[in-house]
Amino acid sequence: MIQTQNFKDVVDQYKVIFFDAFGVIKNYRGLVPGMDKTFAYLDSQKKKYYIVTNDASRSPIQLADSFHKIGLPTIKYGHIISSGMLAKEYLDLKVHDGIVAYLGTSNSAHYIETSGLHTLPVSMIDDSNIDQVNALVLLDDEGFNWFHDLNKAVNLLRRRNIPTIVANTDLAYPLSVNDVSIAIGGLATMLENILGKKFIRFGKPDSQMFMFAYDLVREKMPIGKKDILMVGDTLHTDILGGNKFGLDTVLVFTGNTLAADAETRITATGIVPTYICDTAVVDE
Amino acid sequence: MIQTQNFKDVVDQYKVIFFDAFGVIKNYRGLVPGMDKTFAYLDSQKKKYYIVTNDASRSPIQLADSFHKIGLPTIKYGHIISSGMLAKEYLDLKVHDGIVAYLGTSNSAHYIETSGLHTLPVSMIDDSNIDQVNALVLLDDEGFNWFHDLNKAVNLLRRRNIPTIVANTDLAYPLSVNDVSIAIGGLATMLENILGKKFIRFGKPDSQMFMFAYDLVREKMPIGKKDILMVGDTLHTDILGGNKFGLDTVLVFTGNTLAADAETRITATGIVPTYICDTAVVDE
Amino acid sequence: MIQTQNFKDVVDQYKVIFFDAFGVIKNYRGLVPGMDKTFAYLDSQKKKYYIVTNDASRSPIQLADSFHKIGLPTIKYGHIISSGMLAKEYLDLKVHDGIVAYLGTSNSAHYIETSGLHTLPVSMIDDSNIDQVNALVLLDDEGFNWFHDLNKAVNLLRRRNIPTIVANTDLAYPLSVNDVSIAIGGLATMLENILGKKFIRFGKPDSQMFMFAYDLVREKMPIGKKDILMVGDTLHTDILGGNKFGLDTVLVFTGNTLAADAETRITATGIVPTYICDTAVVDE
Amino acid sequence: MIQTQNFKDVVDQYKVIFFDAFGVIKNYRGLVPGMDKTFAYLDSQKKKYYIVTNDASRSPIQLADSFHKIGLPTIKYGHIISSGMLAKEYLDLKVHDGIVAYLGTSNSAHYIETSGLHTLPVSMIDDSNIDQVNALVLLDDEGFNWFHDLNKAVNLLRRRNIPTIVANTDLAYPLSVNDVSIAIGGLATMLENILGKKFIRFGKPDSQMFMFAYDLVREKMPIGKKDILMVGDTLHTDILGGNKFGLDTVLVFTGNTLAADAETRITATGIVPTYICDTAVVDE
Repeated sequence: MIQTQNFKDVVDQYKVIFFDAFGVIKNYRGLVPGMDKTFAYLDSQKKKYYIVTNDASRSPIQLADSFHKIGLPTIKYGHIISSGMLAKEYLDLKVHDGIVAYLGTSNSAHYIETSGLHTLPVSMIDDSNIDQVNALVLLDDEGFNWFHDLNKAVNLLRRRNIPTIVANTDLAYPLSVNDVSIAIGGLATMLENILGKKFIRFGKPDSQMFMFAYDLVREKMPIGKKDILMVGDTLHTDILGGNKFGLDTVLVFTGNTLAADAETRITATGIVPTYICDTAVVDE
Repeated sequence: MIQTQNFKDVVDQYKVIFFDAFGVIKNYRGLVPGMDKTFAYLDSQKKKYYIVTNDASRSPIQLADSFHKIGLPTIKYGHIISSGMLAKEYLDLKVHDGIVAYLGTSNSAHYIETSGLHTLPVSMIDDSNIDQVNALVLLDDEGFNWFHDLNKAVNLLRRRNIPTIVANTDLAYPLSVNDVSIAIGGLATMLENILGKKFIRFGKPDSQMFMFAYDLVREKMPIGKKDILMVGDTLHTDILGGNKFGLDTVLVFTGNTLAADAETRITATGIVPTYICDTAVVDE
Repeated sequence: MIQTQNFKDVVDQYKVIFFDAFGVIKNYRGLVPGMDKTFAYLDSQKKKYYIVTNDASRSPIQLADSFHKIGLPTIKYGHIISSGMLAKEYLDLKVHDGIVAYLGTSNSAHYIETSGLHTLPVSMIDDSNIDQVNALVLLDDEGFNWFHDLNKAVNLLRRRNIPTIVANTDLAYPLSVNDVSIAIGGLATMLENILGKKFIRFGKPDSQMFMFAYDLVREKMPIGKKDILMVGDTLHTDILGGNKFGLDTVLVFTGNTLAADAETRITATGIVPTYICDTAVVDE
Repeated sequence: MIQTQNFKDVVDQYKVIFFDAFGVIKNYRGLVPGMDKTFAYLDSQKKKYYIVTNDASRSPIQLADSFHKIGLPTIKYGHIISSGMLAKEYLDLKVHDGIVAYLGTSNSAHYIETSGLHTLPVSMIDDSNIDQVNALVLLDDEGFNWFHDLNKAVNLLRRRNIPTIVANTDLAYPLSVNDVSIAIGGLATMLENILGKKFIRFGKPDSQMFMFAYDLVREKMPIGKKDILMVGDTLHTDILGGNKFGLDTVLVFTGNTLAADAETRITATGIVPTYICDTAVVDE
């Protein structure tokens, strides 16, 4: 079994901490036990922290709310960098009018809606409005009929040469201790294969996620990449992305990577975290 | 525009003809006009023919019936080689007892059921029977709830290390002049990506399809590969598979490949048919 | 550690045995110790056997010679099915005249040369003969200058839309206990990526290799797939290919798969052999 | 044929211009005729510009020199953002001591060498120093023996679980009007396939390239993404990357994309530039 370090010893070396959400702070059962102590410690030490999450199903405000409900009252929406925020920025900058078709819940679509852009579920696209559709956004695996709407999305993209944005690159996410659920990123890959096109994907390990957070930090304090630690449970998103962006990284065992598999997976993938800790809990 | 040849001039040079079904003999509107004359001509000339089709949704008897209904009464089930037959042969040889879980219609499952093997839709797999499941077969894109049963199939394959058979390699199939439908092969690719496993796939361009037909022919007459012509509408299944197996091939424009795109696609893919004809109609 | 079976107990249940060569019968040090006893036993029991190998660097006669030199005098060239034989059959059937350009040793090219076809190393293709080149064959990773000739092959395939045949699908092969060497199949994948084209590949796990052997057996005796055992050291070629073709399979630990990794790899890939034995040695 | 716009009309709408180098400013023959007028115009209008290039074969100073030699004296090294700079930043941040092995020319390695890190060509790695190698960097397709050193790199990465950095993501680059040359990015993809590992890649379309340039601009003037135009000749690097980063983009026909193919390629890939111009020449 791989040798782990104490998380507090690691975290003490950095000024700013980036956390993945699912598998680090919370999981399918709620709060990862003890994580409230971590945020209390960070607050007491005046360390900055950000939640960097591949989640486009809710707005940052709703994501912050979900942290409050599980006992982390100090996490504000300003602490949250989601892949949905990057999708929203893309639409603001690059799609100036017309309809944005989407796959996901109406809640996920509400967040990306802006003054100039009207969102419409793929199920409501028809001959009367298809010519006004200027982008397709894949937001969430729920909120639509897979059979009807995935087929409809394929045919929409065969008729209209529009940008397609995938707001969550994960292929699957954990549902319980044993089971996973296919994520919108997995459905997106299928559509890309069938169409022979490459979609625009936002989310870790892409550096744009880290850049967004890094820009926010630098607005508040002069800081370099050496001062930032990325904490994650998944090698090919959190750790690969953090490493590539030039951050030090710590792998924890409270989510996708089990202690028993860690060594095999690190060797197989070649993705090596700077540190390995059992959890991201600061236990004083 | 690419120069085409007369199909009768081509077919006269061969003793045995292999036809793809969809896009060559029939399409979403029914019989490709004039194809009845082709089969009358082949019968009159005592040429052998086989339909080599990536279709696991029905038995060869039902497939033959579907040809009778559109006006081709002489096509018998013995003329038909389907990817479903290869899936059935695999199960006969390699899975000796227990349950075969499937995604598809109950009709598609009926055909692969044998004395020793019990088939069960993925939706009916639960804790009481999961340990008896010895194979998963992906047969058809219809007959099941995509959201529930694709997720269930992912978790079945995470718990049970069983062979997964894909009985149709196509990613999509034409539904009308403009629209396509996602095929079971497209859904299979998504599951493979999510699980990081490779499934066992039957269907063109794999040579096992051609071998099955070639074996049938040789039971009836001494013949070599040089005597056989493969007729298809799709470069990367019919033409690639036929070429690789050592057959001469003819591309027709009544299905997936349009006359206007043929030259571009042949150059882009490097898949070159021996002949190109507008249709597989013999017009005397 | 995974439980293994005695190879003699397994082999006694079958009439015909297919062996992989490298990693089963021989390795970089020569004969796998004891394999002479296996062939003596098979001869004494009048069991048929074939060597089914992804090797296009030499003719079957030369391959048989190489077995004689390491102490297996009864293996004849008629026992050998190589991916090079499939490449040769393809050229015989599908390329009728002109030049076949190749990457490999002149020895590997000599075998595929026929009366009508002239072979020429890629290094000797120039403006005077490029228009006569009707196929490119990738035979071996040795015998040419990688920098000059891989670049030249890319540009040949950009100018001439000709079939490209890869006569060995392996990405790498073992060179010593620690080191591997990039195989022609690995170089082929790079060229395919750069050109965006799919080459025609011969070799396990493709069923055409097994079909070739199966046809040879059936010429001599009436036999079914249930009577044949495939013995191999590599999950994704020998075992996957054998399974898919409908054969029972046995994984041995004298080559690519180590006993310590077997369980992890079988679970990760979903490729499950019928049996697992330490070696293919019959020890009476 | 696709309708193009006048480049001056486009450029006048933006405050900052990002240019790809090869295929826009220069090609295999030298300066793209008229591009000196473009830079004179930009200087006269006090518009900022940056060269954003997938080139790790030379330092920014040497790249600037190469522009001076073809008649663009005002391009300084501070105008240049190369993928080599990102590789260098990664090494500075993430590799603290030991040896950095490399594939490329000694000139390309010189640039990434720092006080603490010693670079060594892969050809000079042996048993005496392999344990000190803490990273492998792929810099250039020249400067090493492909056969010996690519094989050596594979075996280095099998023994040492170290980060591998690809400092140029291009698969190939144009050598003349007809011919291309395999780039280090193409060789990297082969090594990744053989090893089953993912390397760390720097270069367009990755947003880190654009971010590096964007950071430089913002140090000098307050500016938003809407004020920046990306000019490129390649859809899947320049245009895809620019679009994804949120910039407006212009495709020009002086490099990889020909006017005759532009419409087909834009439709096939789904990568749509904001504007299309024949060249990036400002012709007053």
